[in-house]
Amino acid sequence: MTLALDPAAQDLLFREAQTANTFTDEPVTDEQVQAVYDLVKFAPTAFNQSPLRLTLVRSTEARERLVAHAMGANGPKTLAAPLTVILSADVDFHEKLPHLFPAAPGIKDTYFAERSVREVAGIQNATLQAGYFILGIRAAGLAAGPMTGFDFDALDKEFFGDGKQKSFLVINVGKPGEGAFFPRAPRLEFQDAATTV
Amino acid sequence: MTLALDPAAQDLLFREAQTANTFTDEPVTDEQVQAVYDLVKFAPTAFNQSPLRLTLVRSTEARERLVAHAMGANGPKTLAAPLTVILSADVDFHEKLPHLFPAAPGIKDTYFAERSVREVAGIQNATLQAGYFILGIRAAGLAAGPMTGFDFDALDKEFFGDGKQKSFLVINVGKPGEGAFFPRAPRLEFQDAATTV
Repeated sequence: MTLALDPAAQDLLFREAQTANTFTDEPVTDEQVQAVYDLVKFAPTAFNQSPLRLTLVRSTEARERLVAHAMGANGPKTLAAPLTVILSADVDFHEKLPHLFPAAPGIKDTYFAERSVREVAGIQNATLQAGYFILGIRAAGLAAGPMTGFDFDALDKEFFGDGKQKSFLVINVGKPGEGAFFPRAPRLEFQDAATTV
Repeated sequence: MTLALDPAAQDLLFREAQTANTFTDEPVTDEQVQAVYDLVKFAPTAFNQSPLRLTLVRSTEARERLVAHAMGANGPKTLAAPLTVILSADVDFHEKLPHLFPAAPGIKDTYFAERSVREVAGIQNATLQAGYFILGIRAAGLAAGPMTGFDFDALDKEFFGDGKQKSFLVINVGKPGEGAFFPRAPRLEFQDAATTV
């Protein structure tokens, strides 16, 4: 079975790419992050709600506020990365729906009127976008180091005090450094992940 | 800013691909779905927990049980698609961690001992994998039609009566048919989605 995507692209995005745990000192520019965003922004979300927000942590002060809420090895790893991005869902994404979903602008005030509905939808769709974003980092020739080991409630208080964003993932970004990769762990076979009904 | 991923691959996965709402009759084979899976299985999840499970809905009887819980236009769209896949998170993914995460097999009985922890982690990581899977469908030269408009609690009862899987997304898969695509809706500009601190 041959895929339409050429083998070099398959390797770059999936087969040869791995989560990086160390990085070189080479900076990651805003232009690089924007190029990633401008590619992956086209991938789908429900009603095009596009709730993912990126917080690029660059200042020493912000980096220290971030790692204060890291678990285990994530603190030192993050301090040593050239760029760290906090991924969050905009719980008020509905305010942008008249622009983003012109086919049915009214859903802003009907289907998405309740914050509790938006929290669930926002986190789900921002997480889909996080998957696209990780692959986009690889598409830029960079390595991603996604981490869930942070106190996200504390991060929300620290960085999003107005309650309008819920963080859910932190990603270190850069060129892989020495010893960046752990050995590739096994994956589930198709037969163990898929069922036909 | 030039990405490492070649422009044809960028178009195939992101810029020219769109969510499809109609499909041709051309079948989607198990071999095609496996090729997609065998590519995207390498993308990362926390502790390699790999909680995504795929239920390929092929029989007429299963398709009818599925669309009984669809909202609005999702029912007819799904009945007309050559293949529909239910995406779910395996809440008991921890049982496979000694195989999938040999670096720390003990987390099965410590960090992931509680079902409530596994539900949150499982849904989050399976949703990341759903993002990879949607792009993988495109990598196979197929179109994806992801849908959140289903009663997922009802689907869980209907298809996963043992309580071990939580469904969260349904995807139609095939070659795009006539009038498959809506006009591309606007995306947020980088400046509206990203902040530097």
